[in-house]
Amino acid sequence: MTSPTITIPDALNAFCLDTEAYLAGKPGGPLAGMTFAAKDILDVAGHITGGGNPDWKATHLPAENTAWAVQVLVDAGAAMVGKTITDELTRGIFGENAHYGTPINPRAPGRVPGGSSSGSASAVAGGLVDFALGSDTGGAVRIPSSFCGLFGIRPTHGRIHLDGILLQAPSYDTIGWFAQDVDTFFRVAQVLLGNEIPPNRPQAVVIAEDALEIADPAVVEVLTPHIERIAGMAGSSRRERLSPNGLIEWSAQQQTLQGREAWETAREWLDRTNPRLSFEVGDRYGGSRAITDAEIEAARAARSEILTRMDDVLSEGTFVCLPTAPSPAPPTGQRRSERDPLRARISALTSIAGTIGAPQVNLPLGEVDGMPVGLSLIGPRGTDEGLIGFAREIAAL
Amino acid sequence: MTSPTITIPDALNAFCLDTEAYLAGKPGGPLAGMTFAAKDILDVAGHITGGGNPDWKATHLPAENTAWAVQVLVDAGAAMVGKTITDELTRGIFGENAHYGTPINPRAPGRVPGGSSSGSASAVAGGLVDFALGSDTGGAVRIPSSFCGLFGIRPTHGRIHLDGILLQAPSYDTIGWFAQDVDTFFRVAQVLLGNEIPPNRPQAVVIAEDALEIADPAVVEVLTPHIERIAGMAGSSRRERLSPNGLIEWSAQQQTLQGREAWETAREWLDRTNPRLSFEVGDRYGGSRAITDAEIEAARAARSEILTRMDDVLSEGTFVCLPTAPSPAPPTGQRRSERDPLRARISALTSIAGTIGAPQVNLPLGEVDGMPVGLSLIGPRGTDEGLIGFAREIAAL
Repeated sequence: MTSPTITIPDALNAFCLDTEAYLAGKPGGPLAGMTFAAKDILDVAGHITGGGNPDWKATHLPAENTAWAVQVLVDAGAAMVGKTITDELTRGIFGENAHYGTPINPRAPGRVPGGSSSGSASAVAGGLVDFALGSDTGGAVRIPSSFCGLFGIRPTHGRIHLDGILLQAPSYDTIGWFAQDVDTFFRVAQVLLGNEIPPNRPQAVVIAEDALEIADPAVVEVLTPHIERIAGMAGSSRRERLSPNGLIEWSAQQQTLQGREAWETAREWLDRTNPRLSFEVGDRYGGSRAITDAEIEAARAARSEILTRMDDVLSEGTFVCLPTAPSPAPPTGQRRSERDPLRARISALTSIAGTIGAPQVNLPLGEVDGMPVGLSLIGPRGTDEGLIGFAREIAAL
Repeated sequence: MTSPTITIPDALNAFCLDTEAYLAGKPGGPLAGMTFAAKDILDVAGHITGGGNPDWKATHLPAENTAWAVQVLVDAGAAMVGKTITDELTRGIFGENAHYGTPINPRAPGRVPGGSSSGSASAVAGGLVDFALGSDTGGAVRIPSSFCGLFGIRPTHGRIHLDGILLQAPSYDTIGWFAQDVDTFFRVAQVLLGNEIPPNRPQAVVIAEDALEIADPAVVEVLTPHIERIAGMAGSSRRERLSPNGLIEWSAQQQTLQGREAWETAREWLDRTNPRLSFEVGDRYGGSRAITDAEIEAARAARSEILTRMDDVLSEGTFVCLPTAPSPAPPTGQRRSERDPLRARISALTSIAGTIGAPQVNLPLGEVDGMPVGLSLIGPRGTDEGLIGFAREIAAL
């Protein structure tokens, strides 16, 4: 049993140092002896969930209960050793927090860790914990997994209970996890999904050509041998474009729908508190408020078409293979305008699974200029175990 | 000669405590023995101008030169004893700063001091200094003057040099000053305007009926005897509506034109720094960015009509008399949405002089429920001396 007073070094700026949210793992469970961290949007009873924003923290009371996902892991024997830095209110994809700083990317010094589950990814990649919980609304587990070279999953929407988390946009919010090695990733999966996970190979793999076109040529080059190997492990494979009009255009509807939901979730607090936010995040909320009902209707129609198309692509247990991110992690401290084009390309890749509520696993298979780049598999909704079973097969080879 | 190491109590939260921007007054000048404070948008050589935002402060170097207005006052013998809190980047009318707190309104406890020259008004009203410099872009001297019961002026646009100040929207930015008594107000005016100011009574006073309609009935009731007295001091007086379609509609063009300018002034810094801003201020910048060129054209046309109309009203040395603010200071800590209607009414009153670049003086003549309410006089552009000469006549009676 791990002591609840365990101290963790924070050379990576991954942890919220003022959150003593330590929980000893219950003895004898399947995760006994392991340590984990949780993004500071997950409640721990008796502690204030900070959400990456000092004014959120100052205007909320300590949580009464511990988040479902944290409790299940503690009950399974893992020690929860701390809360990790998140982009404020989970609204960011690069992992820079204007209030608390940027967790270090241990695999790519001078580069962002990815966000918003930045501290969780940093802590795992730096070896401070065995695994970590994050959340993924628009890519916030998948992108840090890719940037930091980790196994990471955005589960099927609704698969992991959201009890006890700071919500951003409930139709998109999911709880996921990170690990450096596939065995840890797999053991945590069995606990959180509540199932034994058998080995798996899909009937078919679709290689998403339009997703490859969005990625840097160097990323495609590095991932191509892995894609071919994975395709060879499936019953069949084919190359296909997912979107008729391009993935960037496809992703626009999610910005609209998720933006509106995020505004509705936060508006009362924003009005009451007038909190300090980075300009980028405040601007995003302001822009979301301006979304019209007509834009929502158009976005719903676009989303509906994507659901129909992707149900067709993913039929009969097909998995889609694509780059997780279009590039390795960009440098820290860039101007916002300098980042905007990359942000749009990232959204184009992450929005596919987000829009349809499907699970997506990142496999840390490549490096470009010494920096990690990840390959993703998307499965039909509810095939989390199948994806993880396949991921384990792939990693074993 | 006042010592540069003078210490000022800050029970009012009026001063920036980390800015040791003290300048001894030169001996023998017309303001010898007086102390003053300056809003922390005015440069003092060797000190960083903070602008009410910690990230502005962190991303700027100490000023090389002292602002023109500060230097002139020091040269005239006044000791500059500190910099005062401002709404961040001067973007606020109520005087609440999300980073540094709200200066106390000594005349209306539990109420805001008004902004953005909040600390300057608070320091003068609390007797910490003899007078203070502020700036007025959209009402930021006039409103705190009214809320804190002070003499205050927005001079003719361009009359006081803007060298060495943090700009918000240069077509609207002005430097003004506050004092508790009319003699101090007058002595500072003679120094800053560089002229002897004779007594003055205007040929005509126009009582702005549509401005009175915007104010609370209690404010109108308290100000009415003063208005009648002032009208009686002029060569003639008449009651008139300034705007054909209402002052709130009139003021919309300033929100557009000032907003665009404020965005253009700040955009490079916002993009580079992604600073922490209160949601309200960040949202205002984001909204300003979204202003279209067509909206600018329409606003320019509307402004042009106002200029023509007001040139007519103010012809031949006529002064306009109106309430400075529609109400006494509102309580601190209100929701933003709760404040929005009052904000719109304030803008309707302050936008008249702002739009045409005319000078406006606040006279602290009334109280409602024990809280100050001010009466204003607007003169034609360039009649700053005439306005102040008349203000002194009024106050002397």
